Amino acid sequence: MIKTIDVCLSPDLMHLYTVSDKTVVVVDILRATSCMTTAFAHGINTIKPFAKLDDCLAMKSHGYFTACERDGKKVEGVDLGNSPFEYMDENLKGQNIAFTTTNGTQAIAKADGAKEIIIGSFLNLSTVANYLRGSENNVLVVCAGWKGKVNLEDTLFAGALVELLKDNIEPDCDTPLMAQHLYNQAKHDMVGFLQNSSHVKRLARLNIHKDIAFCLTPDQYNVLPILQNGLLKPFQR
Amino acid sequence: MIKTIDVCLSPDLMHLYTVSDKTVVVVDILRATSCMTTAFAHGINTIKPFAKLDDCLAMKSHGYFTACERDGKKVEGVDLGNSPFEYMDENLKGQNIAFTTTNGTQAIAKADGAKEIIIGSFLNLSTVANYLRGSENNVLVVCAGWKGKVNLEDTLFAGALVELLKDNIEPDCDTPLMAQHLYNQAKHDMVGFLQNSSHVKRLARLNIHKDIAFCLTPDQYNVLPILQNGLLKPFQR
Repeated sequence: MIKTIDVCLSPDLMHLYTVSDKTVVVVDILRATSCMTTAFAHGINTIKPFAKLDDCLAMKSHGYFTACERDGKKVEGVDLGNSPFEYMDENLKGQNIAFTTTNGTQAIAKADGAKEIIIGSFLNLSTVANYLRGSENNVLVVCAGWKGKVNLEDTLFAGALVELLKDNIEPDCDTPLMAQHLYNQAKHDMVGFLQNSSHVKRLARLNIHKDIAFCLTPDQYNVLPILQNGLLKPFQR
Repeated sequence: MIKTIDVCLSPDLMHLYTVSDKTVVVVDILRATSCMTTAFAHGINTIKPFAKLDDCLAMKSHGYFTACERDGKKVEGVDLGNSPFEYMDENLKGQNIAFTTTNGTQAIAKADGAKEIIIGSFLNLSTVANYLRGSENNVLVVCAGWKGKVNLEDTLFAGALVELLKDNIEPDCDTPLMAQHLYNQAKHDMVGFLQNSSHVKRLARLNIHKDIAFCLTPDQYNVLPILQNGLLKPFQR
């Protein structure tokens, strides 16, 4: 039986895909899933993702750290924003975070009903690929995009996965092929390839070049965040 | 004032775009908009596009030729299918066609409310580009895709337009850049580039290799179908 990989380029296209038999990889390179990967690599205990800001803020009174971003900016009064460097903090070790972002946690919510939901980023690219290679499930990569619109950086990550898995998992439709072609064009200079992209321009205005370069660096960590009963935890065999 | 071009990769993402101030280019390379272009190049008078099959079939009694395709196949009992070669018929000159297809005419319906709707295909690529260059409107290319899913051939056409217009019209978001990158990779051998795409595989099973090669050939015709009061007509200055 040949396993397949498909790519949903926007959460607003999720109605076209059946997920009940699939491992869904949610990706929001700039920056939600890069932050989550970084957090687990630095010893966070759990992350509870929320689509709604109010639900996330309410977790403060339950002893959670709050991480809330809207439109690229940290929400006022919360503990953490959406820069991966904030999650390299020793004080967060063993703690729990309630997390909401403009796109990433919305995409997680839309993947509800999947056989399995894992978190992907360039930072844990090979770890994600190895996990998928060893799993028997078909794969759907869900790109978080920007408010429903398709973006380049999440598509490139999808393409990187398709490329890494090409000997094991077959593209199911046109979007994996498109993503793979784009990744192969971009892979030797992803920062350069992305410099005209809309979200990079948006973030550049927020002065976070360092975040962008870091989020595009493959294989910094070998953690695999996996969703179980509404909580993200690092996968352990 | 800089004009912009954006690309909607699927009709199911149309809710994300404002069209009231834009020229919308609807594209369904395989094969609806290629057929429409071919039909006008061979002297068809008007084409009335329909989203619903029954509405289209009802036009038979109003003296229209009927052209109906579902799932890549000609609907039984209608006059015309979805191969451009059927529209090169002398007997169709001056006639009117009621047209419905799985994807192309659905995309036209979703573009309702646009300032202007025109029909694009590789067959009239430069004519479309010249028209857009001379217009003052911003541009949205709407890719018909396949039942909501993004496809490669319509994306390549969008990329070809972005590339042709790069000195005059600025990409508005990431999708024009993605399409342009893909087109520049594919342009020297589009048939080869598309051979693994899902729709080409689907159509190959229907044995229409000749249609595919023709629909990917740029600049066969210089007609520009434009929608006015629900009717497609050739644009005349």
